[in-house]
Amino acid sequence: MRELNVAIIGGGFMGQAHSLAYAVGPLGADLGATVRRAVLVDNDAAVAQSAAARLGWAEWATDWREVVARDDIDIIDICTPPQLHEEIALAALAAGKHVFCEKPITNISTEAERMVEAARAAGVVTQVGFNYRHTPAIAFTRRLLDEGKLGVPLQFRGTYLQETGFYNTDPNRWRARKATGGSGASGDIGSHVVDAAEYLLGDIVRVNALLRSKGAGAETGWRDDAERIDDDLIDDGGVWICQFASGAIGTFAASSYSSGRKNRLFFELDASRGAVEFDWNSREEFRVSYVDEATDHRGFRTVHTNTEHPDGWWRLAGLGTGYVEISAIQFQKFIRAIVHGDDVERPDFAHALHIQQVMDAVAESAITGEWVDVPRSERS
Amino acid sequence: MRELNVAIIGGGFMGQAHSLAYAVGPLGADLGATVRRAVLVDNDAAVAQSAAARLGWAEWATDWREVVARDDIDIIDICTPPQLHEEIALAALAAGKHVFCEKPITNISTEAERMVEAARAAGVVTQVGFNYRHTPAIAFTRRLLDEGKLGVPLQFRGTYLQETGFYNTDPNRWRARKATGGSGASGDIGSHVVDAAEYLLGDIVRVNALLRSKGAGAETGWRDDAERIDDDLIDDGGVWICQFASGAIGTFAASSYSSGRKNRLFFELDASRGAVEFDWNSREEFRVSYVDEATDHRGFRTVHTNTEHPDGWWRLAGLGTGYVEISAIQFQKFIRAIVHGDDVERPDFAHALHIQQVMDAVAESAITGEWVDVPRSERS
Amino acid sequence: MRELNVAIIGGGFMGQAHSLAYAVGPLGADLGATVRRAVLVDNDAAVAQSAAARLGWAEWATDWREVVARDDIDIIDICTPPQLHEEIALAALAAGKHVFCEKPITNISTEAERMVEAARAAGVVTQVGFNYRHTPAIAFTRRLLDEGKLGVPLQFRGTYLQETGFYNTDPNRWRARKATGGSGASGDIGSHVVDAAEYLLGDIVRVNALLRSKGAGAETGWRDDAERIDDDLIDDGGVWICQFASGAIGTFAASSYSSGRKNRLFFELDASRGAVEFDWNSREEFRVSYVDEATDHRGFRTVHTNTEHPDGWWRLAGLGTGYVEISAIQFQKFIRAIVHGDDVERPDFAHALHIQQVMDAVAESAITGEWVDVPRSERS
Amino acid sequence: MRELNVAIIGGGFMGQAHSLAYAVGPLGADLGATVRRAVLVDNDAAVAQSAAARLGWAEWATDWREVVARDDIDIIDICTPPQLHEEIALAALAAGKHVFCEKPITNISTEAERMVEAARAAGVVTQVGFNYRHTPAIAFTRRLLDEGKLGVPLQFRGTYLQETGFYNTDPNRWRARKATGGSGASGDIGSHVVDAAEYLLGDIVRVNALLRSKGAGAETGWRDDAERIDDDLIDDGGVWICQFASGAIGTFAASSYSSGRKNRLFFELDASRGAVEFDWNSREEFRVSYVDEATDHRGFRTVHTNTEHPDGWWRLAGLGTGYVEISAIQFQKFIRAIVHGDDVERPDFAHALHIQQVMDAVAESAITGEWVDVPRSERS
Repeated sequence: MRELNVAIIGGGFMGQAHSLAYAVGPLGADLGATVRRAVLVDNDAAVAQSAAARLGWAEWATDWREVVARDDIDIIDICTPPQLHEEIALAALAAGKHVFCEKPITNISTEAERMVEAARAAGVVTQVGFNYRHTPAIAFTRRLLDEGKLGVPLQFRGTYLQETGFYNTDPNRWRARKATGGSGASGDIGSHVVDAAEYLLGDIVRVNALLRSKGAGAETGWRDDAERIDDDLIDDGGVWICQFASGAIGTFAASSYSSGRKNRLFFELDASRGAVEFDWNSREEFRVSYVDEATDHRGFRTVHTNTEHPDGWWRLAGLGTGYVEISAIQFQKFIRAIVHGDDVERPDFAHALHIQQVMDAVAESAITGEWVDVPRSERS
Repeated sequence: MRELNVAIIGGGFMGQAHSLAYAVGPLGADLGATVRRAVLVDNDAAVAQSAAARLGWAEWATDWREVVARDDIDIIDICTPPQLHEEIALAALAAGKHVFCEKPITNISTEAERMVEAARAAGVVTQVGFNYRHTPAIAFTRRLLDEGKLGVPLQFRGTYLQETGFYNTDPNRWRARKATGGSGASGDIGSHVVDAAEYLLGDIVRVNALLRSKGAGAETGWRDDAERIDDDLIDDGGVWICQFASGAIGTFAASSYSSGRKNRLFFELDASRGAVEFDWNSREEFRVSYVDEATDHRGFRTVHTNTEHPDGWWRLAGLGTGYVEISAIQFQKFIRAIVHGDDVERPDFAHALHIQQVMDAVAESAITGEWVDVPRSERS
Repeated sequence: MRELNVAIIGGGFMGQAHSLAYAVGPLGADLGATVRRAVLVDNDAAVAQSAAARLGWAEWATDWREVVARDDIDIIDICTPPQLHEEIALAALAAGKHVFCEKPITNISTEAERMVEAARAAGVVTQVGFNYRHTPAIAFTRRLLDEGKLGVPLQFRGTYLQETGFYNTDPNRWRARKATGGSGASGDIGSHVVDAAEYLLGDIVRVNALLRSKGAGAETGWRDDAERIDDDLIDDGGVWICQFASGAIGTFAASSYSSGRKNRLFFELDASRGAVEFDWNSREEFRVSYVDEATDHRGFRTVHTNTEHPDGWWRLAGLGTGYVEISAIQFQKFIRAIVHGDDVERPDFAHALHIQQVMDAVAESAITGEWVDVPRSERS
Repeated sequence: MRELNVAIIGGGFMGQAHSLAYAVGPLGADLGATVRRAVLVDNDAAVAQSAAARLGWAEWATDWREVVARDDIDIIDICTPPQLHEEIALAALAAGKHVFCEKPITNISTEAERMVEAARAAGVVTQVGFNYRHTPAIAFTRRLLDEGKLGVPLQFRGTYLQETGFYNTDPNRWRARKATGGSGASGDIGSHVVDAAEYLLGDIVRVNALLRSKGAGAETGWRDDAERIDDDLIDDGGVWICQFASGAIGTFAASSYSSGRKNRLFFELDASRGAVEFDWNSREEFRVSYVDEATDHRGFRTVHTNTEHPDGWWRLAGLGTGYVEISAIQFQKFIRAIVHGDDVERPDFAHALHIQQVMDAVAESAITGEWVDVPRSERS
């Protein structure tokens, strides 16, 4: 059986999370290939060595360029900060590697456009780490939409809330500034719910947003203009409404200051023949209501998807579905696309570019106060 | 003990609901007055007679003008369609009656402005039927905000969803047109969640909205311009974002086409020291999370308010809180304001005017695509 | 239209709760009679006078014998402590009155047997205050069982939990002793869930129980024999299992010491073709799962019953269903049985006797440690 | 760093589930050893070869005796049917191996007693696959009990429900008979909730049970004696009550015929200072209520434990906690006990024996109708 050798760039949190998924995802999943954790790269040698040992990588290295150039590597997995994504991805694509890149694909759409272009030229498989959409309940919603069971989508309402605290305690810190690589609540977590929305309803074509950032002088709220978002300051949260190409409408919220919300990705979708509700914190539950049920039995039903994993016996391990299981599904799709070359539905670079364009439009609208159009994606 | 004689105008659904509340609200509630269901008025004599008999009113009548002129009537309760509100209210106020008016106060803000003016001149007690805010869990949230326990409000997310079906199956029907008295999902149900938002966070100062109406030619969605909202067509639902005077931001959604949602009024409020969640369908639950809890005990707690009714032993009957109990609380506040003349917190005409102005701005924004400012209320 | 005059005996909490229900229940409900709150009786004149005025009763009195003897009274509603039930009920039945009696029908089954006998001889309508079973979601479950939609009941699991605190802080207090009229958690609240079980599954035929009572010397638990239940001491809670005549089995729990449970009546029923779940704290939700659903849509559905009230337009007021609404339904059934003489399903004296016999068997089993048989009810 | 070589006996579902856990559990968890999947054994060579390849084991074999005798193997993991557990475990213990054995430890307590004896003699580390108790919310409940934060446990109510269907469609099949290795709903799934109960409250000392088995002649229910459980027939479900050594009481239910319950392990615990609720289907939620909270803030709070994994950065992967994560925690504890030799809390053979004795007592009580005493465990 074919062996795919992976090199991962970045030994931080995401490098660790991906390591777990590479360890467990291929087991018993009939991917058509074995997956070998070949090299872990981090520019800090101590981190690289320690992480490789702890996470089961055969080798460690500090120079990603050397590793990207190696013939024995099939897959480059990029887990660095976003401002490094383009350079690494372009090198990897030029070397003919399949590339998995953590989200956001980049902080700047023009960089992402070059990555999409290079991926198309290279003819390899790319994917971006929009992991939540792989949750079986979300994927099943997509299937019902494709089959017409839910009718035409009409309204989408999504939120991604955390209680990690304000991104910006000091607007002068690098973390608070886009220019120095920062990313706010809308881009960091809000983009996941935008991804879910586009996965289910297709392209968003225009947005109008209110984002807010905690200013230096404000103890608790955003009471004056100084606290308004500006061209460079990242946001701590916000709200936006949108129109989809299909005619559907949507509303979104993101925040880092939602007490009691450790990690709440939530959405509701109303379509002409039914409605669906999803909450990451009860992610195993597929909840659906159909318009044409008998009156005395109409309402949301809760279907436990935890034995419905799409992948053979692996579903049995899915008696409970956690972060690692979802990550495993994510990489199973990536590996399948490489091995089988077929049309495995997944968020590739072109898709991630469009999400980035939506988030750019959200940020622009928050500054200008105007509706901002989003380019149509190539998928449409 | 003082007796207050009520005349109710309109024997339809709301007349019936108010009758239940007048029957039960005063019982054992120490209001300082007895409340007598004196006259039920409906311009259809058969309806008036039947409804009065069934709902416990001493007399029935068909001419509201005569009844408003009677010396033995203290309170006029208006349950007619909105286009009749102004005329009846002005007459009642001129006659020195206290006036309870169902919502919306009117369909047109200028009418509501005259009603506010007349109410001020008359010096009587007015109230509008924003009943949901009287739910103990909402009122308790307001108290915690007033006491500073939740800190500064930052973000509000509210929805009011029903599955009653599209308002407009034919855009030429009177029901589908504002000019002929129609009111869409945003005004009809969305206004309740706007009321909850303003009750808790104060004035909304600008809004931006997307409303949609099912057009004649559209079977299932709103795919073309014909289905966009126009100047007169009412909406089947929509989304809007807003800014509050306090600096907080908010997002709203309303719809008549949400499968599985019989009557879902829902909101979440993030403030700087805590967050609150409310769902009408579990209305007895007050749900709150505080920022400063110990990490391993931080999260939403669910407090059953069903024995916490503010009104003496009556709370005991509150082992479960339904629509009738909430209506009873609504009228208890109205009666108390009449009897005690003190500052009983309630949605009076001035308040209802502001809600109407917000809804007007939502409708205008949906047509123009621009942010629309809302006048500051007199309360602020 | 016929007028039914009610005299209520007892002006305490239950007298107040019933007053609300008499005030609101008949409104618009097509009962075929008007219901007049004629006399409130309490042996404390001050209580009687005050309660009558506050709760809308035309007269007050202190001598229930005189009132029971009055020709103009049609209905006697007994809200006294249980040890007075038999005497009042027998007198009322002898006078040909219809009798509503709060639960428990008595504390001693032999008393209840005489009441059943007298009711049969009198040929009048009797009912006991098992109010929770009238919740639409429970009544609908019964209907589905009657229609065979759920198949054969197999297992019932019910709990009634409160956090009112231990019944017994001092085992020498009258409240702690059956002989002096006390009733423990199993009898006081557990009997409601036994009523729900028998309403849905028919007769319980034998039980085995563990009840516990907080002893004088125990600070926190029940660590020694002194804290075991004895022949006279009432319980603070307990667990019991049972067999139904149908072959189904069940488990029950009751407690007064369940932190966080203000008033939790909960049950689950597994039947051969489906399952139902009920929680009083979300009493408007009917939750059902069917065995023969498609695999990917199988699970509990939640149907909001709050617009499904059985009684004409009244259902509209049921946009939310609280304690008063449920009480109103309870009295609507009672009045209908009086007016129409037909077979209105309700818990009459014979039914309440059987519940009492089950609770007696539970108490006996807790003392003897043996299975205790329950006589078959007359209904079966 | 020390390397621990594992041989797993049995390539079925549990062998697969354990393989996932061995692959992912050690990654980044600071166990003090690396864990190598050395040999997978199955008496069917084709299964062994295929499973080893698919699940990442270095070798495969068909003769467990040979593998147990190998010097290079440190750990024997037994995933065979229960009737083979004793023989394999005794051989492994005699060879000085650490032994992990799936539950039930055996079907017969006398076998388990010999295993406990041999484990004590060998002085190695043993553990049994009661995996659910490792859920962070359950482990945290234990910690709060140990610290006295919840006071003294008073009442435990647990259920384990599935909808897998009746175990017995034909009482003559081997699956339906204990003698031929069958295990019913009470033993198969009910034992997990008994394990949770003993983990939190200590020894159960006596039980009384009703178990039922679907008889050959019964289409849907268990209407006659033929369907009663007998000495050898396994059960499809049942209910039982128990007394704990501490004086607390409990009730349990298990079933294979609960529509809508894919895998519902649920329990509630009332203690003198607080209460806890757990549901496997929302396993990331720790729900607790304390007696001494302020009245207007008293109720269950929901704490998301999904970032509270006890094991360093690994907690980050716990953004969602699934079956694989829980299994990983299970094996992390096992490995730690081997490496550090310290007192790592885990369910060892002695513990599993006691659970088996409780389940034997449940089965015996269901046949005799009597209370059955359970021996005290060695832990107590």
